[in-house]
Parts: sequence; C-alpha cells; structure tokens
Amino acid sequence: MYSSKLLDKAVDQFATLPGIGRKTALKFVLHLLKKNTTEVETFIQSIHDLKTHIRECKQCHNISDGELCDICNDTKRDSATICVVENIKDILAIEATSQYNGVYHVLGGIISPMDGIGPADLNITSLLERIEQHPVREIIFALSATIEGDTTGYYIFKKFKNKEQLVISTIAKGISIGNDLEYTDELTLGRSIVNRVKFNFNE
Amino acid sequence: MYSSKLLDKAVDQFATLPGIGRKTALKFVLHLLKKNTTEVETFIQSIHDLKTHIRECKQCHNISDGELCDICNDTKRDSATICVVENIKDILAIEATSQYNGVYHVLGGIISPMDGIGPADLNITSLLERIEQHPVREIIFALSATIEGDTTGYYIFKKFKNKEQLVISTIAKGISIGNDLEYTDELTLGRSIVNRVKFNFNE
Repeated sequence: MYSSKLLDKAVDQFATLPGIGRKTALKFVLHLLKKNTTEVETFIQSIHDLKTHIRECKQCHNISDGELCDICNDTKRDSATICVVENIKDILAIEATSQYNGVYHVLGGIISPMDGIGPADLNITSLLERIEQHPVREIIFALSATIEGDTTGYYIFKKFKNKEQLVISTIAKGISIGNDLEYTDELTLGRSIVNRVKFNFNE
Repeated sequence: MYSSKLLDKAVDQFATLPGIGRKTALKFVLHLLKKNTTEVETFIQSIHDLKTHIRECKQCHNISDGELCDICNDTKRDSATICVVENIKDILAIEATSQYNGVYHVLGGIISPMDGIGPADLNITSLLERIEQHPVREIIFALSATIEGDTTGYYIFKKFKNKEQLVISTIAKGISIGNDLEYTDELTLGRSIVNRVKFNFNE
C-alpha cells in the first residue's frame, strides 16, 4: 500500500508480468515516473501498436506484421523444409542458433490431455493442407523432449502415413555440449547412447 | 531481431526497464500478447494515468494523488516529527517497518559534488520553511550511511543552529540484526561500539 492510489494501480499492473513481484514492479514504475512524457508515451504506444496491429502469419502461424511473416516471405530460405514447433519462442530459440535455413510451422501448443488440449486445438490441419499445396521435402519435429512432445510428434507423424516421399525427422536428444557425463540424467544419457552418431573422418 | 517489427519495438521498450534484458522483455511482451485487449488496455491506462495525474505533495514532496499526500493528510500521524529522506523509495522502506508514526520530508537527492548535485538542487528551503510554519519537535535524518549522506545531514543540521528547542537525530548505524560479528566490516562494527546502547532492564 503506497501513499498514492495511482502508483498502487500501476504497481499492481506491472506485478502481473511473469516473475515480477510488487518490489520489482515498484522499481519499474518509479523508473517510468522519472522518464519524460514523450518517452512514456513511446512506451505505451509500442504496447498499444503491438496488441492492435500484430497478426498471425497465415502460412506458419508465427507472429507477423503482415499477411506472411518475414521468414515465410524470405525467398532465400528453403520453403521445402518445415520445422514444426510448439510456439513462437521456439522459433526465436532456433533462429538464434543460425543453424536452420528452412521455414516453420507453429502448432500453438502441444497435445496435453491433463490441460485439456487435444489435436483439434492445435494448427495441425493447416500443416496438412500446407503439405498438400506446397512441395515439401522434409518435416522436422522440434518439440519438447517430454511425453507430451513425443505424443504430439507421433500423432502428426501418423497423419503422414501415405506420404512416402516425405522425410520426417526429429531433433537429436543427447547430452548437452559442455556437460559432464556423470551429471547427465540416466534417460538422456541412455538416449544419447542409443542414438550414437558415427564418426565421419571426411568432415 | 524478430520476424515482427512491432514485436521488436515493444521488446526494445521493455528492455529499457531497470535490470531487464531483451530475453526477459520478450517474455513480458509475449505474456501481454496472450492477454485480452481489455486487460492490455488496463495495463496501458494505469501507466498513462500515473504519468498524467500524479503530483508531488506540496508539503513533503512525496508522490501523491492530490495536493497533500496520504501521510501528510493522516491526522493520526505525529506531524511534529519529520523524517528527512533522500527519495520516495526510502519512505516506502521505512513505512514497511511499521516503526515510525511521524511525517516525512523528501530531499529529492543527496549532496554529491561528483554528480553535480548541490544543496540548491534539493528540497532544503521548503524544509526550513516548513519548520517555521508548523510546530516541529524533532527532525530525524534517515540518509544513506555514506559520505554524501553524512555531508547532506551535516549541511542541513548547520541550518538549524538557532533552533535550540528542536531535537535533531539520525538513524542508528550498527551491525545488522542476524549478522555475525566476524563478518561485519570494521567501520560498521567500530560505529556500533561507539554508539553502544545501555541495557534497560525495565523495558
């Protein structure tokens, strides 16, 4: 409770942000109070514009400023390779690696009966339509290494049964680079032994 | 760099908040995107209202919704005791202790020649005027335990030279409660020995 109700309200609002308590929220609010009016207006405007004008890419469901997102629009990218991810944060994570030059498909979630999310809630139909309409060579599943991620991958995989020319892969699971073997959990270590990769002396 | 310029701009804005990098800013922005329009409008409105309507209490310079802040307006508080603090965060910190029932005076900074802040930049004149106009019994300095804090306190203290009926005190400096002696720095420990408090068996 502060001496100002306006301050109190603003702190309450910032405290709704993930991982932010009232103490940090107060720090944010006092910081904004110190800024000049134009700077605060710019701050407000950026949130307003985002919420009002942002769209979903009609092809891959990534967030986008226009009808198609910058990745789908980029002719330098390989549109015949689609990486299937759970949400847009995963796209950002993969893009940050600079190791992928294909396009994406955002499911918008993962099959999770516990949370009441079934296949119908995800962008699966649009993925199947996309494959019918465009020439696609490979589908890469980049889903969480959890039961839900595996279930979702397997569910979609079964839908592709009749597509024999399609290469379907999933990202490798194994020990993290830089990690000690002794500190890696058994499941991960087991998987990394089963999925061992042959040394290639020509590389 | 994200696939959306609107997203990029909003992330940039949130990343100006203290202690927030682009990764956390993105988390905030995606969280706001998930909220419905009314919720986001409430968020925006709270910042706008704060910046537009908030005022400075004309008596103590605390932030306030009206002419006087809730603390100055509170008739249950002892208006004859004024606690002099550097900024409004200090008021919040002292209020959180529930150990003080007087009123405050916010200097709006601290004398610091290195940062170009002199006595004229602080609310010192208004403090002197306040003492002339209202009956004041005690002034408590609750300033940082730094050279700047001591200098500021001493500067104001000298201004009260002719006020013999006024009690002037400063908050106690000593070892933190719960701290081990051996881990307390020498200056603090030294001060806590010099300013030792007599056992009072009647308490």
